[in-house]
Amino acid sequence: MSPQTTTPLFTGVVPPVVTPRTAEGELDLAGVEAVVEHLIQGGVTGLFPLGSSGETPYLTQTERDEVLRAVVSANAGRVPLLVGANDQTVDRVVDEAKKVLAIGADAIVATSPYYAISDAAEVKAHFRALAAAVDVPVLAYDIPVRTHYKLPMQLVAELAAEGTLSGVKDSSGDDVSFRQLRLLTRGVEGFSLFTGHEVVCDGAMLSGADGIVPGLGNVDPAGYRRLYDAAVEGRWADAQAEQDRLTRLFRIVDVPNGRVSPGAAGLGAFKTALVELGVFASNRMAAPMLSLNDEEAAAIRTILETEGLL
Amino acid sequence: MSPQTTTPLFTGVVPPVVTPRTAEGELDLAGVEAVVEHLIQGGVTGLFPLGSSGETPYLTQTERDEVLRAVVSANAGRVPLLVGANDQTVDRVVDEAKKVLAIGADAIVATSPYYAISDAAEVKAHFRALAAAVDVPVLAYDIPVRTHYKLPMQLVAELAAEGTLSGVKDSSGDDVSFRQLRLLTRGVEGFSLFTGHEVVCDGAMLSGADGIVPGLGNVDPAGYRRLYDAAVEGRWADAQAEQDRLTRLFRIVDVPNGRVSPGAAGLGAFKTALVELGVFASNRMAAPMLSLNDEEAAAIRTILETEGLL
Amino acid sequence: MSPQTTTPLFTGVVPPVVTPRTAEGELDLAGVEAVVEHLIQGGVTGLFPLGSSGETPYLTQTERDEVLRAVVSANAGRVPLLVGANDQTVDRVVDEAKKVLAIGADAIVATSPYYAISDAAEVKAHFRALAAAVDVPVLAYDIPVRTHYKLPMQLVAELAAEGTLSGVKDSSGDDVSFRQLRLLTRGVEGFSLFTGHEVVCDGAMLSGADGIVPGLGNVDPAGYRRLYDAAVEGRWADAQAEQDRLTRLFRIVDVPNGRVSPGAAGLGAFKTALVELGVFASNRMAAPMLSLNDEEAAAIRTILETEGLL
Amino acid sequence: MSPQTTTPLFTGVVPPVVTPRTAEGELDLAGVEAVVEHLIQGGVTGLFPLGSSGETPYLTQTERDEVLRAVVSANAGRVPLLVGANDQTVDRVVDEAKKVLAIGADAIVATSPYYAISDAAEVKAHFRALAAAVDVPVLAYDIPVRTHYKLPMQLVAELAAEGTLSGVKDSSGDDVSFRQLRLLTRGVEGFSLFTGHEVVCDGAMLSGADGIVPGLGNVDPAGYRRLYDAAVEGRWADAQAEQDRLTRLFRIVDVPNGRVSPGAAGLGAFKTALVELGVFASNRMAAPMLSLNDEEAAAIRTILETEGLL
Repeated sequence: MSPQTTTPLFTGVVPPVVTPRTAEGELDLAGVEAVVEHLIQGGVTGLFPLGSSGETPYLTQTERDEVLRAVVSANAGRVPLLVGANDQTVDRVVDEAKKVLAIGADAIVATSPYYAISDAAEVKAHFRALAAAVDVPVLAYDIPVRTHYKLPMQLVAELAAEGTLSGVKDSSGDDVSFRQLRLLTRGVEGFSLFTGHEVVCDGAMLSGADGIVPGLGNVDPAGYRRLYDAAVEGRWADAQAEQDRLTRLFRIVDVPNGRVSPGAAGLGAFKTALVELGVFASNRMAAPMLSLNDEEAAAIRTILETEGLL
Repeated sequence: MSPQTTTPLFTGVVPPVVTPRTAEGELDLAGVEAVVEHLIQGGVTGLFPLGSSGETPYLTQTERDEVLRAVVSANAGRVPLLVGANDQTVDRVVDEAKKVLAIGADAIVATSPYYAISDAAEVKAHFRALAAAVDVPVLAYDIPVRTHYKLPMQLVAELAAEGTLSGVKDSSGDDVSFRQLRLLTRGVEGFSLFTGHEVVCDGAMLSGADGIVPGLGNVDPAGYRRLYDAAVEGRWADAQAEQDRLTRLFRIVDVPNGRVSPGAAGLGAFKTALVELGVFASNRMAAPMLSLNDEEAAAIRTILETEGLL
Repeated sequence: MSPQTTTPLFTGVVPPVVTPRTAEGELDLAGVEAVVEHLIQGGVTGLFPLGSSGETPYLTQTERDEVLRAVVSANAGRVPLLVGANDQTVDRVVDEAKKVLAIGADAIVATSPYYAISDAAEVKAHFRALAAAVDVPVLAYDIPVRTHYKLPMQLVAELAAEGTLSGVKDSSGDDVSFRQLRLLTRGVEGFSLFTGHEVVCDGAMLSGADGIVPGLGNVDPAGYRRLYDAAVEGRWADAQAEQDRLTRLFRIVDVPNGRVSPGAAGLGAFKTALVELGVFASNRMAAPMLSLNDEEAAAIRTILETEGLL
Repeated sequence: MSPQTTTPLFTGVVPPVVTPRTAEGELDLAGVEAVVEHLIQGGVTGLFPLGSSGETPYLTQTERDEVLRAVVSANAGRVPLLVGANDQTVDRVVDEAKKVLAIGADAIVATSPYYAISDAAEVKAHFRALAAAVDVPVLAYDIPVRTHYKLPMQLVAELAAEGTLSGVKDSSGDDVSFRQLRLLTRGVEGFSLFTGHEVVCDGAMLSGADGIVPGLGNVDPAGYRRLYDAAVEGRWADAQAEQDRLTRLFRIVDVPNGRVSPGAAGLGAFKTALVELGVFASNRMAAPMLSLNDEEAAAIRTILETEGLL
């Protein structure tokens, strides 16, 4: 690897925490505590509550507060909490950020504007206004499949160099941009580059990632930790083998095969796996998303068994 | 025209109301009242506050309340208020809808989910849950440039037939779908089909639209009312001539020519024109959008003069 | 209407001619002659062979020549032939254009580059090189669903004003751009603005179109001619009624309902209707497109009966 | 790595060969021979003429033949030639394939249909008809930025298993799909999985790629060969360091910075670098693409010097 003379603020495996519900559809706060414990026991180095994998778009304001309080309580200061402040535009994001900071966030993760139609200048102003309004690190959440805007690498590099952004969670799937962003931010003290990948984490680490934010990490946090450790220690064949296993495990998201929406398929598979693993009591999704059915749960159980989780 | 034996709930010209700010960037509630008066004097048949043209994505929750209260107060019951309840998913939209109903909305206008990644089944469930939660008409706001989801005409027709949707504001620009949706909803009592077009309103009326929701209607409400009346009375050459004039007027949105974001160009031009017309005191945009400058204002003034508004 | 002081080179109804095949999949040149006669008897004012509706992307070079020769022969000089010169980039388009001119084209219809990744400057150079290489009128074919590039209206207006482009066939579905392009080209002598719409032709005429290029015109040329005549004569209610009928007729393209590809559904429906009308012997599509089956043919027959064609 | 018990037909570094022109714009066949020699001396294991990097979309039929003949002559059987057969639909692709086979291709590389609007069933039929028509291996060229169709991994896996496809050149940038496709084709004898990446080749090799098809490989074939060898031998830190260097070298494509089209920027940079390296006499592009200017050539020279190529 090219010499990395700086120390990133955050590293390791920081899963986006899924949000359980009871069979009746209410928030399951005991389940939130259970998954936090499951993750920390699995060796994660941080938690990312109120991300897309937490069904945050579907949570009311009240529910968001309740979920985060439960995470803060269960975590009890053991790992840093990078918390999503998710809304359309910056004034609304700042309101959200202040709220989650009051509850206990250690850093803010925010997307570029969405629904609003912006340009690069407005996106810069957006992150600058957010960073000016809070006194914790701000990470950009690059997820064009939802925002319909890919954060240009030069823009991120500029905001990193000036101290506005302390990191990125890159869920863009654009690994070419990711590699180049890594080179562009080599000398920026503290800057933390996370991939949102689930099945190319070994490659992302080889590209110079500081950490991983895998939704599938809810199901197998220990596997992702092993992958991360192998990469950091230069045991690339081990990292590759672990990634291949996790890639096969990821096929749980294909089980619904179009019966539910794309949004519900992945998260529904994770929740169903967590039921099978004894962490959750129900795989119920936030309305109007459909939950996975018994047949799908059985197919997921088979994959969990094959890949050594049951 | 094919016989239209039903009576739409809403008809005519219902502009999305723009939201003025002071030169310092604060909400200008006196300006809100001024534009409402300007619109009603121009002959509009309804108002659509808290739409995209109202910079609603940029308004905090508090600001949204203040704007709507000012519209309700200024309107004083003269025309119906179709009010946007804008948020990502249905539980959040319901919260928003209840709030605006408490302030004085006569109908709710809501998009399909955004940021969330849905499918047709979830979109149906979304609108059904919204309609079940409120006791006023619900209109779908079809704006794929923001939601990245085009409402399929068969889906809308089904929701119309069952009484979930009382109408659509179609800002999709898909006039083929619009024409076919009109034929599919011919027999649905009360269903109101509005186009969001500014420059093809005559064609939309020929396709069977019940009304028009033009952002440019903030600038020239009387022009759109003349266009609408001509169409309803079958004076198509008059409608066409009025539309040609309004199309030339619409070129005010091209004035910034890339200096500001696409979102800021159109609304900034409307606001600037309203300053020139003496309705607003400032053309200031919500941050982080840039406002139009003096040179751009001068160019807009020239167009207003050429098209007979000054 | 605003005064139109210029005379367009081409006007009226100019259908893109579909290409019949025998039940065995060979070109059916007798069928080509039959559809040409069907169209001219229906009152069309020109023909557009080797367009997308002619399955031109699927024709070998030899087949393209054969089809065009049959059209030229059957037409026998009765109406002008606007002929597609379809290829990826300009040198190849020029080769194609010279070939169709040798066979008997009266004007060339060409898209912007595709597969190649261009920008506006290259698109201008593309059309200029084409116009310089041929001595007949060149019309731009604006079909972003295939080229993935929308011709900007300012670019077209510039190429029109300088004499490079003699017209446009607009299959973009962007009626806002279409209306504005009409105003921008008002004073350009000879410039001919055609819509590719099938179900909003009345609106396109109200926007100032000079003519119509409807794929469905293969099935009901007389209907489109009545629509066109009514519009030209200012009988808009008649135009609207005819368009409403044709819009219902257009539902034949929905019959396959996903069983075949989008490309095969529309053209397959047209071909099947032409079999039902006795013009074609087979509805066979070019491989690898699937042809419509007997059940689908029966459903199309019912629609043809309902809309007065059988 | 999971055990790979099969032997791929093709492996290693197989660059898409760029096509030089004289300063006057004519094909430079001596330059074709020079770049072939440059590549083979650099250690490439195969050549991919008539790919997108060869400006193939811009070549007339005659020019395509001339280029391929020059490649065949210069190669003199030293490495296998995987040759592009580029056209819109299968009958036309077969015509093209037969022609290049007659000239000396060892395998055919073909995209899914473009300009034509297909679906998965037609894409399968497309590749099956092509494979049936030729007696050499067929590789799919997955390049959605040009075809606007991403080859679904399950479709490719099915065509691989049945023997229709002998490999894929994946230029989709979708590394998640790539990793999963690798696992799906593990047991398919001979199947060859190539990445089109330039800056994430180390990651692609870690994902199980059999080889690399880098456009930048025209400039630095020896660098890519070192990267490939390091990966195959499990020296991942060496692969990573080489990739980091090549990623910095790749910044030559950013030099034009919007002055030319995206298509012209990358290829123009490669050609300009080959002039600086003494392989080409001119960096002239096929019309209507603009060539890079002297200032841009100087900037590229600086990068070449910094990265050790001059």
